[in-house]
Amino acid sequence: MRIALDVMGGDHGCNVVIDGAKLALEAYPKISELFLVGNQTDIERGLTRARCRDARLRIVHASEVLTMDDKPLAAVRKKKDASIVRAVELVRDGRAQAVISTGNTGGLVAAAAFKLRRLDGVDRPAIATVMPSARNEFVLLDAGANSHCRPIHLLQFALMGSIYSREILGYKRPRVGVLSNGTEEFKGNELTRAAARLCRQTNLNFIGYVEGHDLFTDRVEVVVTDGFTGNIVLKASEALAKAIGRFLKSELAANPIRKLGAAVASGAFLTIKRRMDPDSYGGAPILGLNGIVIKAHGAARENAIKNAVRVAIETIQHQVNDLIGRDIAVANERLAATEVAEEVPTFA
Amino acid sequence: MRIALDVMGGDHGCNVVIDGAKLALEAYPKISELFLVGNQTDIERGLTRARCRDARLRIVHASEVLTMDDKPLAAVRKKKDASIVRAVELVRDGRAQAVISTGNTGGLVAAAAFKLRRLDGVDRPAIATVMPSARNEFVLLDAGANSHCRPIHLLQFALMGSIYSREILGYKRPRVGVLSNGTEEFKGNELTRAAARLCRQTNLNFIGYVEGHDLFTDRVEVVVTDGFTGNIVLKASEALAKAIGRFLKSELAANPIRKLGAAVASGAFLTIKRRMDPDSYGGAPILGLNGIVIKAHGAARENAIKNAVRVAIETIQHQVNDLIGRDIAVANERLAATEVAEEVPTFA
Repeated sequence: MRIALDVMGGDHGCNVVIDGAKLALEAYPKISELFLVGNQTDIERGLTRARCRDARLRIVHASEVLTMDDKPLAAVRKKKDASIVRAVELVRDGRAQAVISTGNTGGLVAAAAFKLRRLDGVDRPAIATVMPSARNEFVLLDAGANSHCRPIHLLQFALMGSIYSREILGYKRPRVGVLSNGTEEFKGNELTRAAARLCRQTNLNFIGYVEGHDLFTDRVEVVVTDGFTGNIVLKASEALAKAIGRFLKSELAANPIRKLGAAVASGAFLTIKRRMDPDSYGGAPILGLNGIVIKAHGAARENAIKNAVRVAIETIQHQVNDLIGRDIAVANERLAATEVAEEVPTFA
Repeated sequence: MRIALDVMGGDHGCNVVIDGAKLALEAYPKISELFLVGNQTDIERGLTRARCRDARLRIVHASEVLTMDDKPLAAVRKKKDASIVRAVELVRDGRAQAVISTGNTGGLVAAAAFKLRRLDGVDRPAIATVMPSARNEFVLLDAGANSHCRPIHLLQFALMGSIYSREILGYKRPRVGVLSNGTEEFKGNELTRAAARLCRQTNLNFIGYVEGHDLFTDRVEVVVTDGFTGNIVLKASEALAKAIGRFLKSELAANPIRKLGAAVASGAFLTIKRRMDPDSYGGAPILGLNGIVIKAHGAARENAIKNAVRVAIETIQHQVNDLIGRDIAVANERLAATEVAEEVPTFA
């Protein structure tokens, strides 16, 4: 498998990404080529530093970087030699099968939508984030690609999320819910109500509205929402988990007796840390594009990069995009048929 | 102080609310009258059971209850003898200075807006929820009263939340932020952008956009958002905190060694549990009404009821509503002046 990795634009600099690339090469013999895209000198220096020599490595020089302050669409158009743009072009040109970036999320979405185009029948790509629930995990989308959404977009997110949950997370018939401010049908807003109506017309395992209390509880496997709300929920959850972790740490270090107890029970904390750690999920796929695009966390460290490569490999293997294209076509046909049927005058 | 307590409609039945009333009467000698509103027979039985006899108690019979399945506005109009409605009427008639209910949130908002009317200059009441941050706490509003909001509503939430944070939580000059999907100015949607513009024209300590990552971090004391997003954030945070707590518990009980460690360090877990427990906050005030209205959690237990009474007492003491009325009037004047100034033609 051929994968492109944008090594610039992460919070911890390109060396951390290169170290992650090294881990991925060691872990996944399936990789046949790994493109490192960014400043050539920095990459060569990083590889030497990491003592990483692997015949599958390809360096692709890019002279510019998209920063967090760049306005996505304008920057993608202006900075033609940005690493994020060059990395996406490798997929467009068929040289790579998937691209991974830790950089500016909006920039990655813009570059991908611009260079790869959307899958037939998909109006908006969506960021699908996997989050831990009580015993399993669920996928939340859109986690931030579109701050404005129409009902049909939410339906498409539902279809794409359902396929991702089935193929990658292994749920046979994932339950899909539209995120709302309450589970009663009269709750929500125009967007959620219309989206729920559309979802009911498909063969999704649609369970209606889910609310905040349903998250992290194994009640739903695919949570559908607009990118504004989804982004806030994702980031607030990350912030809360971190705050609880820090609070726990400081309370357990508050006196020698607690320190002793914490040392004795340390296995429990390690398990929880691993489970709650965003790094263990690695990367969030941006679904709905003509190509596999994985957004890794800006703060991703070596291990997160390695896991993002794993997500890319799995997404290639399961041909998620082909399945999405097929299901979206079926759903669109079915919706069109329903509309026609509703337009037929009744003579009763 | 005279307080009305709707004893019906909570998840755990009216006895738990009555037990909470007993705790409150013991804890707060400032209470001069405590109205228990609901089914008289149930209340009398509950008081006997709790061995609660207090000269400050008044029973107000109400023959109906608003359930979670009731559509708020319609139910408030139809069930004229619902406990939630009768309890609000005690405030309207001046017999009580504040009302507390654990019942249907929409029903409480509807009954309060309908019977008490809004404060002059306030377009929409908002539910203000206090949440723990790393070392302190912040107030999030609206947590669910309005699923559709206009920019001016968010401005009013900002003003009301700022006063609440200052008077009740004790922050001298609380930092106010509009919740968005990123802190950059080009992020957000039309609502957040226009709301941020309005907030900048006031004398609020406005810090611009805050994102999910800023919550629970002591970066902001007042987080302003529409009731759809706010409700989801609030409930998702509660669900996540609960999930982490349960996970921690099961991991610490996984083997005898961990159990021993957990027992030794138990003080730490108790402190965290207390800090994360929604019961310790008791109730969320619905701000912007001609009267003090406190929404207690549906799942509130005795202690939460007691704390909701404490919130009511503090809100009465600090004359929060008078301050809101004054600040809203000043802000509206200032905005009107700005609009006029912008309309004046310039001859430069």
